[in-house]
Amino acid sequence: MMSLTRRLLGQALIASAFFMTPVVAVAQDVLPSWNNGAAKSSIVEFVTAVTTQGGPDYVAPEDRVAVFDNDGTLWSEQPMYVQLAFALDRVKAMAPDHPEWKDTEPFKSVIAGDMKGVMASGEKGLAHIVAATHAGMSTEEFAQIASDWIATAKHPKTGKLYTQMIYKPMRELIDYLKANQFEVFIVSGGGIEFMRPWTHQVYGIPPQNVVGSSIKTKYEVQDGKPVIMRLPELNFVDDKDGKPLGINNHIGKRPIAAFGNSDGDFEMLQWTTFGEGRRFGLLIHHDDAEREVAYDRDSHFGKLDKGLDQGPGLGWTVVSMKNDWKQIFPE
Amino acid sequence: MMSLTRRLLGQALIASAFFMTPVVAVAQDVLPSWNNGAAKSSIVEFVTAVTTQGGPDYVAPEDRVAVFDNDGTLWSEQPMYVQLAFALDRVKAMAPDHPEWKDTEPFKSVIAGDMKGVMASGEKGLAHIVAATHAGMSTEEFAQIASDWIATAKHPKTGKLYTQMIYKPMRELIDYLKANQFEVFIVSGGGIEFMRPWTHQVYGIPPQNVVGSSIKTKYEVQDGKPVIMRLPELNFVDDKDGKPLGINNHIGKRPIAAFGNSDGDFEMLQWTTFGEGRRFGLLIHHDDAEREVAYDRDSHFGKLDKGLDQGPGLGWTVVSMKNDWKQIFPE
Repeated sequence: MMSLTRRLLGQALIASAFFMTPVVAVAQDVLPSWNNGAAKSSIVEFVTAVTTQGGPDYVAPEDRVAVFDNDGTLWSEQPMYVQLAFALDRVKAMAPDHPEWKDTEPFKSVIAGDMKGVMASGEKGLAHIVAATHAGMSTEEFAQIASDWIATAKHPKTGKLYTQMIYKPMRELIDYLKANQFEVFIVSGGGIEFMRPWTHQVYGIPPQNVVGSSIKTKYEVQDGKPVIMRLPELNFVDDKDGKPLGINNHIGKRPIAAFGNSDGDFEMLQWTTFGEGRRFGLLIHHDDAEREVAYDRDSHFGKLDKGLDQGPGLGWTVVSMKNDWKQIFPE
Repeated sequence: MMSLTRRLLGQALIASAFFMTPVVAVAQDVLPSWNNGAAKSSIVEFVTAVTTQGGPDYVAPEDRVAVFDNDGTLWSEQPMYVQLAFALDRVKAMAPDHPEWKDTEPFKSVIAGDMKGVMASGEKGLAHIVAATHAGMSTEEFAQIASDWIATAKHPKTGKLYTQMIYKPMRELIDYLKANQFEVFIVSGGGIEFMRPWTHQVYGIPPQNVVGSSIKTKYEVQDGKPVIMRLPELNFVDDKDGKPLGINNHIGKRPIAAFGNSDGDFEMLQWTTFGEGRRFGLLIHHDDAEREVAYDRDSHFGKLDKGLDQGPGLGWTVVSMKNDWKQIFPE
């Protein structure tokens, strides 16, 4: 027991030393992958303001809710959403059991690797692909399929695992907020059950803090064993005006900080920043063609148009990946 | 700073003293409103088993998820669900603005205080009452209405505030689980937005840990101000086979312990206890006519029939309120 006592005493001493460190010294250590500049300053100023007890902008820890979009905000969404790459890979893996797909669009194009053909099938075609690859199994089976895939699937251009294509500055930001007693949620247009198997390991965000799109499910007892089956029917789309609704339904609190990168995040930032008291909204602008991909108003994935026009006027921070980030991906 | 240092050192000493207390002494202090017996023992044995590091049943803290039904499990549901009492009170409060209700059922019966007439209107009538009282306002307005009501509304028989009619032994159980690093959720058939404004204060369970039934919502910008409006349309019924689905959608983890009192909780306990590893299911049997109300197989609210028949064979603990609880309500 003595060693435990000593460890606790040690922690107390470390904690007290931390509190005695001048604020400026602490600030120099946070967000090391961010260049010093307006974007980083706006984050640190906001966090300092809402965590300063007795200050005019103080927010109690239980109300420090921060929400992050996933695709294009926490990891790469080019040349296509990672979940779409997953769905296409699943079609190919399942094709031997579906000989009829050889002659049926959009499956024919997927199997042929013809992305133009796939995209030409439109939303209806994509819905068929999602239904075929995301439904018809139990939630536990699907979680296993998603886990197995993400463990080995690689980005078509960089050859890295997708989980290595997360943005290091954003991972630091999540940790910085958590260290300041924020509760951090992902609020993504992506599938909630596609993300949950790996977000804890990759971002430090557990399943109950992931909000996303979903398909309908059904509870059944199969051979005496209860299962939740995934049905080929949309339940909820957590995008655009769906994001505030998803936040309200899952979290039941209005966030005080929201982070996104596309017009799909506009309403989430709007809902967050129009609340009373000090609020924070941030959009990432993908303007770094050299280290990542430069895209905004005309992109198929992660279109950012309205946010670029209105964001600055609404007091939102716009991050230039090129200028504000020292490093984009982890080593 | 010195006082802070001293406080931290003090906490460390208290913590180390706690860890040095023999386990048996700690066990004697837990769940003080529970009589010693099979029910209390089954709880303590389960918690000890899943928290004993190196033991065969050890569960990591992040997977210690416990779910509690609300009506009849955490507070009284007789002579009617508290939320129904709320809806009826709202009809009366809103009646002056709705002269047409004087001649329209089920409102006519509500205003006349004729509960038989209200119940005779059936599910359709109740749906009308819910639509009239729970929709048509913003989520923030509804939270205020629910908060204001719960602050003063009193139980028709005891004259106590509803929030004083929570079960003390269950409140102790929530705290006991939290002290053992469980994350505790409410999973109720009641309205998610009816519960969230007060569950933190009353049970120590914050809004994001409340799962419940919901109506559809819509995001709108009204006069430049974003709001979430409540629509008179059902979204999700978190009862019976809906409970495992609500758990899956909100929490994304399978609980290891589930607590309920009616057949509406059957699937939640089934889903929880059929999982791998050590699991725990508990049903409260309302058998104390003197201190509360005795009801089970034939009750309008909180019917317990299937659970009484099958629960014990499935290894679920059945709590006798009469014999297992020293005290039912807080002082």
